[in-house]
This record gives sequence, C-alpha cells and structure tokens, in this order.
Amino acid sequence: MRTKLFVALMMIANIAMGQKLLTLEDVMSGGNNWYNLQPENKYTSWWGNVPLETTADDVRELMTGRRLVSVERINEIVGEKVAHSGHNLLMPYAKRPVVQVRGAGRRLQVDWEQGKVVWSQPIPEGAEWQDFNQTSRNLAFTRLGNLYVMTAQGEELTVSKDGSTDGSNNIVYGQSVHRDEFGITKGTFWSPDGERLAFYRMDQSMVAGYPQVDISQRIASVTMDKYPMAGETSHQVKVGIFDVKKRNVVWLDLVGAPDDYHTNLTWSPDGQTLYVFELNRDQNHMRLVAYDVATGRMQKQIYEERHDKYVEPMNGLLFLPWDDTKALMQSRRDGYNHLYLLDIETGAIDQRTYGDFEVQEVLGFNRKSKSVLYRSNAIDPRTSCLFCLDLEKPRCTLLGADEGVHYASLSEDGTMLIDRYSSPTVPRSINLISTQPTRGRRPNLIANILTAKDPWQEQGYAIPEITSGSIKAADGVTDLYYRMVKPVDFDSTKTYPTIVYVYGGPHAHNVDARWHWCLRGWEAYMASKGYLLFILDNRGSEWRGREFEQVTFRHLGEEEMKDQLEGVKYLKSLPYVDANRLGVHGWSYGGFMTTNLMCTYPDVFKVGVAGGPVVDWKYYEVMYGERYMDTPQQNPEGYERCSLLGKAKNLKGRLQIIFGYNDPTCVPQHTLSFLRACEDAGTQPDLFTYPGDGHNMFGRDQVHLHERISRYFDDYLK
Amino acid sequence: MRTKLFVALMMIANIAMGQKLLTLEDVMSGGNNWYNLQPENKYTSWWGNVPLETTADDVRELMTGRRLVSVERINEIVGEKVAHSGHNLLMPYAKRPVVQVRGAGRRLQVDWEQGKVVWSQPIPEGAEWQDFNQTSRNLAFTRLGNLYVMTAQGEELTVSKDGSTDGSNNIVYGQSVHRDEFGITKGTFWSPDGERLAFYRMDQSMVAGYPQVDISQRIASVTMDKYPMAGETSHQVKVGIFDVKKRNVVWLDLVGAPDDYHTNLTWSPDGQTLYVFELNRDQNHMRLVAYDVATGRMQKQIYEERHDKYVEPMNGLLFLPWDDTKALMQSRRDGYNHLYLLDIETGAIDQRTYGDFEVQEVLGFNRKSKSVLYRSNAIDPRTSCLFCLDLEKPRCTLLGADEGVHYASLSEDGTMLIDRYSSPTVPRSINLISTQPTRGRRPNLIANILTAKDPWQEQGYAIPEITSGSIKAADGVTDLYYRMVKPVDFDSTKTYPTIVYVYGGPHAHNVDARWHWCLRGWEAYMASKGYLLFILDNRGSEWRGREFEQVTFRHLGEEEMKDQLEGVKYLKSLPYVDANRLGVHGWSYGGFMTTNLMCTYPDVFKVGVAGGPVVDWKYYEVMYGERYMDTPQQNPEGYERCSLLGKAKNLKGRLQIIFGYNDPTCVPQHTLSFLRACEDAGTQPDLFTYPGDGHNMFGRDQVHLHERISRYFDDYLK
Repeated sequence: MRTKLFVALMMIANIAMGQKLLTLEDVMSGGNNWYNLQPENKYTSWWGNVPLETTADDVRELMTGRRLVSVERINEIVGEKVAHSGHNLLMPYAKRPVVQVRGAGRRLQVDWEQGKVVWSQPIPEGAEWQDFNQTSRNLAFTRLGNLYVMTAQGEELTVSKDGSTDGSNNIVYGQSVHRDEFGITKGTFWSPDGERLAFYRMDQSMVAGYPQVDISQRIASVTMDKYPMAGETSHQVKVGIFDVKKRNVVWLDLVGAPDDYHTNLTWSPDGQTLYVFELNRDQNHMRLVAYDVATGRMQKQIYEERHDKYVEPMNGLLFLPWDDTKALMQSRRDGYNHLYLLDIETGAIDQRTYGDFEVQEVLGFNRKSKSVLYRSNAIDPRTSCLFCLDLEKPRCTLLGADEGVHYASLSEDGTMLIDRYSSPTVPRSINLISTQPTRGRRPNLIANILTAKDPWQEQGYAIPEITSGSIKAADGVTDLYYRMVKPVDFDSTKTYPTIVYVYGGPHAHNVDARWHWCLRGWEAYMASKGYLLFILDNRGSEWRGREFEQVTFRHLGEEEMKDQLEGVKYLKSLPYVDANRLGVHGWSYGGFMTTNLMCTYPDVFKVGVAGGPVVDWKYYEVMYGERYMDTPQQNPEGYERCSLLGKAKNLKGRLQIIFGYNDPTCVPQHTLSFLRACEDAGTQPDLFTYPGDGHNMFGRDQVHLHERISRYFDDYLK
Repeated sequence: MRTKLFVALMMIANIAMGQKLLTLEDVMSGGNNWYNLQPENKYTSWWGNVPLETTADDVRELMTGRRLVSVERINEIVGEKVAHSGHNLLMPYAKRPVVQVRGAGRRLQVDWEQGKVVWSQPIPEGAEWQDFNQTSRNLAFTRLGNLYVMTAQGEELTVSKDGSTDGSNNIVYGQSVHRDEFGITKGTFWSPDGERLAFYRMDQSMVAGYPQVDISQRIASVTMDKYPMAGETSHQVKVGIFDVKKRNVVWLDLVGAPDDYHTNLTWSPDGQTLYVFELNRDQNHMRLVAYDVATGRMQKQIYEERHDKYVEPMNGLLFLPWDDTKALMQSRRDGYNHLYLLDIETGAIDQRTYGDFEVQEVLGFNRKSKSVLYRSNAIDPRTSCLFCLDLEKPRCTLLGADEGVHYASLSEDGTMLIDRYSSPTVPRSINLISTQPTRGRRPNLIANILTAKDPWQEQGYAIPEITSGSIKAADGVTDLYYRMVKPVDFDSTKTYPTIVYVYGGPHAHNVDARWHWCLRGWEAYMASKGYLLFILDNRGSEWRGREFEQVTFRHLGEEEMKDQLEGVKYLKSLPYVDANRLGVHGWSYGGFMTTNLMCTYPDVFKVGVAGGPVVDWKYYEVMYGERYMDTPQQNPEGYERCSLLGKAKNLKGRLQIIFGYNDPTCVPQHTLSFLRACEDAGTQPDLFTYPGDGHNMFGRDQVHLHERISRYFDDYLK
C-alpha cells in the first residue's frame, strides 16, 4: 500500500499544445477564478440517521434525491424571508419535520408539515458568541465581557455582571481562554440536558496589553490587546456552573496555581460532575479532576500524567454511550496519540490502540456494535483513514478507501458515515459508508455519492508534476516526507530555480496524501512560471509522535533547520535543481524558519520571503511559547540561541519580511525588532505590511500578497 | 555677476588615474569617514567686540592667537573637571575675564584672573528646557509639564502647578507651541532685564492623540502623541508673564479665538510691553497687538495684515537700539520679504528694502552708523550675501564676497562681523568684516581667517561635475534653478540612468550657491556609481517671493509636479540622459512629490524612493496643513484631488516608501493608508521602516538608509 502512495503523479504538462497556465486568480482562494477551479462538491448533513444534501434551494434526502423542504416553503410559512439558501436550514431533530433557521431577529423552529412556526426565541441584541442547546433550547450568549442565558421561553438571565464592558477585556466571561491552546475553542459548555452551563471566567487585568493601531480611523486609534508574553504575568481562569432553573452560579474550587490551565471540560452523562484536565503553568504535570457541580467541590483526582518536557491535553473525555462508568481518553503517554478506556471510578486505564501512528480524531460510537470510529494515519503517515474499533472484541476495521485524507461525519446511531476524502489522484470523493461489522473488500461502501473529476485538467490547464517521497532526517534514522512540484514543461536536462516552502512547527504538516499531495495553489502557480518547489515536513511537525515533535524542546528551530538542510542536500543531488538559485518561503513558524535559514545558512539560500515570523520567542505568548521553550527565566540560553535578533548580522541574501500590521498572534514587535537589529548591524532585509490584517491575509489581500511573494522571487531568484 | 555664478564647476574626474570613488561612509554624516572629508574649520565667537577662537584646549583671541584661558586652568580653579573642551567655555560678559561653564551639577562663572568661582547656581534636577538670562542670571526651566524659575541666588520658584506630569501632555507650560510653526522655537521669553518671564501655556486636552508604539520595550508600549490634524480640534494657547520679584503671574487678555496663533513674542526695550503677532486659525488675518505686562490688558493693535491666501508672520520686532519708538519688522506685504520701519506709537510703516528678492535674516544693528545688517538673495536667488543698510541715509552696502551663501555673527557694538561662507568652488571661507561705512572694492575685509581647500580633491577622490542653471517653470515665465550632477568619468556619447531628487515644498530649497551648488553627499555617491542627478527648485519653494510660493494654495503638489515635469522635459532634451531610466527620490514633502509623481505620471518615472511622505493632507497637522490647504471642511475638493490615496491605483513603476516607524511629523498613518489603498487597488509599492526613528534618520541609520535607497535604484534603474 505504501508503494502505491509513492507512485508519482505523472501528469506531464505540455503548454505548447495550447494548455493554459495557472494564474494567481485561479489558484488563490481570494482569486476571481478560484471557485471555478474547485473540484465538484455536494453539501451533506445528517437528519438523525438520514443522510441529507442541502442545495441553494432546498434540503433533500441524499440517497433518493427527494426534496424534504424548500427555502421558499419555509419563508412562506414564516411569512418573511428568513432563509436565503438550503444551507441556512438546520434539521436538529431526527424524524421530526422541523427546520431550525435564523432570521428576522429570531431563532425559529418551523414544522414544514404542519406549516407553522412551532417555536421561536429572539436573538439577543448585541449578542456575540451564541451557544444554543438543542435539547433545552436555552441559549448562552456573550455581550462585551459578560455572559447571559436566554431561556427557551425568551427570558434573558444574567450570568455575570462584572465582566469588562469598557473594551479593556480585563475580565471576560464565556469566552475561549488560554489563547485557544489545549484544544480550547470556546468558553461555554452546556450540560447534556441543557439546564446547566459550565463557563470560563478569565481575569486578564494583570496581563500587559499589546498596542494594536487602527489606521483606518480618521485619526489612528489604539487598542491594548491583552497578550501574555512568555515568562510574563499570565491571566487567571476560573470555571463556573450556572444553573438555569436555580439561577445561581457555583464556582469550581479548582486545584493548582492561579495561572494553571483548565482544559477540555467534560460533563458526566448525568450532568452531576464536571471533569477538567488541569495543567500546571510549566505544562509538565496534567491532572484529570472531577468536580461536583452542585457544590463546586473537587470529588477526586482520577488520573495524572507527567513528562520531563511537556504534556499537552488536547481532548476531553468521551463517555461510552452504553456505560457511564467508562470514557474514552486520548493520550500520548506511550509516545503516540492513542485511545485509552478510562474507568471513571478507579482511574484505571486500558490502552485500546497501539503502534507508531497517531489517532487523529474520534468521530463517535456505533452503539449497536459497541465500537468507536476514528481517523488515524496508521496506513501511511501522510494518510488519514477511517477505522472502526470494536471496544469489546479486539478487532479494528478500515472503513472506506485505504488511501488519501478522510473527513467524516457519523449518523446519530453511529451505524453510517458520510466519508469525504481526496487522494493524490482523486480531487474529491464522497461516500456513504456502513460502520457495521462486515468482512471482505470494501463491503462497507453503501454508495458513492460523488467522485469529482480534475477541474484543472478539465479546463485545459497545464498541471505540474507533483510527487511525494521520503528522505532521512538529520538524525540519520527518521523518515521525513516531502512533496516536489516540478515546473510545467519540465526538462530534466535543464536546471531550475528552486524554492523550499516551509512551516516546520508543531501542530501542522504540509505533506499529506490529499489531492496533489496537499499542493498549495501558489506552488502550482510558481511551477507554471518555471520554478521547482520542494516541501519537507521536518521533525517537530505533526502526527509523527511525541519524540518526533519533542526533539525541538527548549531550542526551537535548530533541529527543524537541520532537517531542512537534509532536504537541500537532496535537492542538490538532483541534476535539474540549480543549487545557486535556492529560495525559501514560509509563514508564521515558517516565517521564523525562513528568516532563521537565511541568517543561519547565508550561503545556501539566495532569496527568502518570510511572513508573520516569530523572531524571538520571548515576544510569543505564554501558552505555546513556554510549552516548547520553557520561560526566558528558566531557559535563558535557549531563548538567546533561538532568537533571530543575534543572527540579523549574518543576513546576506535577499529576505523580504511581510506581516499583518495588526497581527495579534505574532505581534509586529517580532518583525520590527528584527528590522532594528538589521539596521544596527548594517544588513538589509526588505519589508512589507498589510494594515488592518492579522496573522494571515484573506480575500483579495491574499492575491496581492502572493503576487508580491512571486515577484520577489522573479526579481532576485529567476 | 550672475554670469559668473552660471559658470560650471569644471572638475572632470578621471578614475582611471587612480582616483578613489566616494562611498557612503565618506559622504553621509553618520559615515565613519565623513568627518575626514569636511572642509577645514575654525570655531569662532564674540567676547563683546573681541573675536575669539575656541579649540579643544582653550579660548584664544582670533586675530592674535593669544590664549585667553585654557580648559585646564578653569578645571584647576573649580577643582573639578567641569569643562572638557574650549567649546564648553562661554564668555558672556565683554571685557570681564569671566568664563561661564556647566559642570558638577552647577552653572558656574569663573574669573580666570582672580582664579576663583565668582558665582554659581545649581542645575535643577530633572530640568528639561533651560533658558538662562545673562543679565539677571535667573534661569527659567521646565520639568514635565510645568515651568519654574531658579533665581540667581539659587532659589527655585514655581511658575505653574497644573501642567501635566502624567505624560499625557494635556497642559504644558514654557514649551514651544503651535508645533514650531510661525518661527516659534521655544516657550520662554525673558524681559531685557531678566526679571520678567513671558511664557506659553498650551492646553492640548482637547487634541486627539496619535498612538506612537515603542517596540524597544520588553512588551511594546504606546504613547498618545498630541497631534492636531487638519480640520480637527486644535490646542489652545495662552501667554503669561511671571514677575520674578513679585512672584506672581499675569495672563495676557489675548484677542481672538481660543485656537488662534500667538506668535513672535517681543519685549519692548523698557520691559513694560509685550508685542504679539496674533493670527487667526484661518491664517489670513494677522494683527500686531501690544499688551501691558503689568495688567495683561491689551494696549492697542498696532498693525494688521490680511491676504486672500495666507499671512505668515515669521519674525518678531527688532527695536532700534537708538530709538525705542521704532522697530524693524519683516513682511511679505509687497510680495517679497522686506524690512519695514514701524512706528510703534502710530503704527505707520516705512519700507526700507525693495525688489524681487528676499531679506533672509536680520543680523542686528551697527549702533554707530545707525544701520541694520542682514542677509538677502538680492544678487542671485541662489546666493545669500551680507548687506549693511543705513537706516538714516538711503544707502545699502554689500559686505564680504558677492557670491556664495553666507552666515554671520555680529560683534556687540555691531561694527564687525565674523562672516562664514561657501561658494560653488570655495568649500569654506571665514572672514572678519567691518560693517563701518566705507567705499571701494572689499575695503570692509579686515582679515581672512580661513579659506579651506577642497578636502575631496586633496584626498584623491573622483569628484563629479556639478553645474547649476535655470529653466522656465510650467507657467512659461518664471525662472527655476537646478543643480545637475554628472556621473564621474562622464562621457557625453553615452546615456545614463538619471535620478531627480526633489523636495518641492515651502520653506525649503535645494539649489543654492554653496559649495558644490549645495550638493548632497548621496548625489556624489550616486554619481560615483554612474548615475546622473538632477535637482530643481520648483514653484512653491523658498526665497522666491509670495506669488512663487502661493501658486500652490489649496492644491499642494500640482504646480510643483508640473514644474518638475519641465525639468524632465529638459533632461529628455539632453542626449546623455536615458529617458527610459528616470528615477525620482525625495523625503517628507519630497516623499509626497515622489509618490505623487510616480502615480500621476506613471510612464515618466520607472523607479522612485519616497521617504516619510505626506499621503493625504488631512493626516497632516493643523498649522502647516491649513495654511496651504485650508481645512478639509473648507476645501474638500482640494483635499480629495491632492490625496495620493485615490492615485494609488495608477502605480506602475517600482516605488519604495520608507518611513520612521515613530515619525511624529508625517505620522505613519500616511504611508500605511497608502499601502492599504495600493493593496485594495492591486498595485505593488515596496516598503521599509526604521523602528524608533522619527521623521528623519541619523547616525548609522542614515548610512543604512542610503545604502537601501541606492540599492533600490541599482536593482531597478541601473
């Protein structure tokens, strides 16, 4: 199977035969022809166990194509244009002919058979985050710094009053905390019955503000964005429980220090207990603690993990639907992210997946077969395939194709999946898959819903040859995977300017077995202009296990660069790579890598474009920064060594740094400090910025940005 | 005489004969060889009527070379190392053997004959601005927002208490106001006897702050810099009089609106009256008002001027030393800046200089001959020569050389001048000149103190040919003067890339009859690299009279660009100018011009480098902006037409914009708004910034900057 994945995509372009060359308008998501070059798609969802397709006009049964309800019908029933597209129509209740829709200032449930609005609730004015519970129909929402609940009956209840309403964000309720690290994406968590709301309260009054200047005003104005930098004072988080019926708040009596992390909140199925994965600020000791939501008191510590480097809880518990005393837990304790069955009473754990691969996502359970559905890269590190693991018998089954990268959603009872995947040669495939135990080859396929053709080929574009392979890391042992994009009309007797695109940081990868090996549109554009592109996932990157990632601990950038240099060594072994015309480009962590490579190996790379770079980890945030680097106080030598400020003097080639002028992630202090260091050292980087943009550029700015990046290579590398 | 000035400097370089090429280290003031390439100099001053020379070690009589006092001697007398150089030793009192020096936390007067400290006063801790009165020996000083006086006896008196000490600068005392326009450079004004202090109080609490971000801190911090933008709320200024003996403050009962301008404060010789040139915010009505300092009440309005466009008082009154009822006043009322004798009682004026030239500086009076000494460009608009005008007989005499640009300082009695000048061929000449009435050719020369040799020639550098000439302005009538710098080893049969350097705004010029026709070092460097440079003072620039300047009123940039295009037309007529390789560079107003030219005439200029540009006059300050443009409310079409935001879409060539990241003059909002406009329009300027720098770069940053500017032309124009 692996061999198969190594087979190169052999699509020799011949632009002499009238094929079109890709432009930025074709390949960038902000480009005006991007949409036309996307693989065909269908929008699917579940209505209980019925797979649906939504279109611009209606919602249909996916298998039969039978229209269930139209946009027109709903608007007619409501008597107002509340829906504009089938995608606005949610079907929250299995079997019930009820659509939920937002419009005319209300959240409505419409029974399309009875032809009437069966329930509605006003959408609170000024509401920001909204968390609606489908069971109780209570709505949690935030407004400025405070948290409120609107009951199913439309009564507005105040959960908090002392949140900041002056824009200072000193105290905020119901918002995501810990800067979205540790898998945290929100700040409200409904109990299973929707009658109790767990929520975060974050006190940031002690955190320094980073000045963000808005130049779009008549006179530029400033906002102080609370940004805890590594080693500096961090925020303090509490967890409260609001009881909708009692209308009171109980605060959890959290264990640990005030600036500890409280992550992955999980309700017990009975709604009486809240489980919190607590992590100390040093991030090397994690404790799973159960709290009694009625009193806020700790019930017990169920489980703990320590590690010399760091522990990083990313997922909450998943209780078995058929056994409230057991929950599925994810842990990297054996070196890879695996599934464990946790006995919630005793804290005993029972490992259920093993091997040098990682479980990437748990999709849910098949209650009938008592199995869990998940994605993992067990087949090849670049794939993400679907598996069904029987939790009672030791049996694991592959579901769907044994190649590509899959995303799937499960039916209510867990017996069916809508599987969406692409592979290097398949732009998009949508399939209905059974999760019931079966035998034989692909017996689980119920129906192929869609297999998209290659839209680039169909529309007559010259497509570069895109291949993937592996080289050894600088440690001489580890396999690293690359993608290579050859220039269109490639001629192996010629030499080409070659650009290494890099990210290189944790929690991300660039090379996988998606369509075109996960090609970024810009690479295809550059290949059309005659460049060769090379992308290598170095050690430190995603889905390769703990050791692979943690080799960078306390000295970010160093091992990553060594691996990238192995990539360069490989490139230099190829006769068609012009070793005197090597460029490098990356954004964010990749901007850090690009700047670092340009300054650390000034004779290797001639041209670089670094976007939104980290320049010195002391300017990066506490959560991410201290995980990988510890604090500047604990690891002064590491911070010094990994800082680019001291390397600014080595810059020799052409390096353009580009940043969002209002980047709240890699704050402008990074880039500006690097500039200052270059100016003091007499070296000459180039610069660009996008006022009003954050860490990344979107829409037309994305096209502008890539025109800029491309032009820089054209100017100095071509 | 004019013909003579037109003669080109014929210094044909021959780098084949082993001449050195100038580097940026040679030509930039921050360069490490700059000092060695400066013309020889002497540091001169007056001790009453005795001309002095100060050296590193001592102070000498200029004519005899006799040492008056040494640094060593003063330190010996004081018993501490208070002086480090002869330049630290002031000789404030004619004939008295007293040196004034600052050191060891004190301001000391030392009698070198008696060998003792005859007076001292502590230097107040935390003092910022210090204004010492030599007569009373009272010291006015500011600390944070407040104003204090330290008496000659060392007693500290508080003049103000309610100034801002919190860094907000809401209310400031004793500081320069109206953003240094209208000739204002400070905020304290001692009466002739030094016993009364006139001072400004500025209330800026109603003025918006511009956020200036300091990235040199551990976590970037912000300061809100009070910056009144055109059309927005301006500050309010009052004038107070502090009586040192009575220890009270009397406030002037100022005429006009709260945001009027109160300029050019002048004490009457008897110290009883303060004269203020009041200007309305619209800047088209100026009134000279006399105030009784004892009561603060207005005595009378002495004089007024109105103009459709604007009136700009730049100079206070100068009372005749022999007649307290008459004062010399400068005005452009007849179209050029001329001298008027004002009868302070009747307000009658009597014009004393006439013609299509401008009086540039009044140096003072010769009491014996009852004449006034001044500089003007009467001989040629590019010169600034010295004149003595007899105020009783209608006789005007040229003093010193009839060429070049002179600066001079007058002896106490006004009978002698130390004249320092350079001309296109003379790097520096220092002469002692008599101001007494004489006849014949240069009878007024007492002694030539120094005539410096050409240090570039002496040290074997290849010097480009530098010439000056004139062309007609776009009006077809007006003469405009240019400087042309030919590449070293110029060959008229070749064609050269050509760069127009431009400023173009009011209150400045680039071409005058100084050494090398006022050549900037960078031009010589670029000529050494093979570029031809062209610099033209367009209409709107300095010293050419009111109409010449005011032709730009309400539409800044337009006439100026038309004139620059006449320069381009002339360049294109020259066989050795490559019309396909025209570049343009300028800073501040010149950055505005550069960006404007690149966007308005996209087919003329291929490459531009714009520094610290104005992009939209609405982001510029009230005082300067409204003088030339009126307010955005009064002149919306003008602001719209002159804004570069709407022109961003036209950019075709390569344009790099460079700005000081903390520019308090052309705030970064200019450049950043232009970037945003380009990004929205899909055009591609380049960018650079110097964090921590203001409107201009100094020291090593200046070298870095010019390496950057030069490289840009090398990359895209060469």
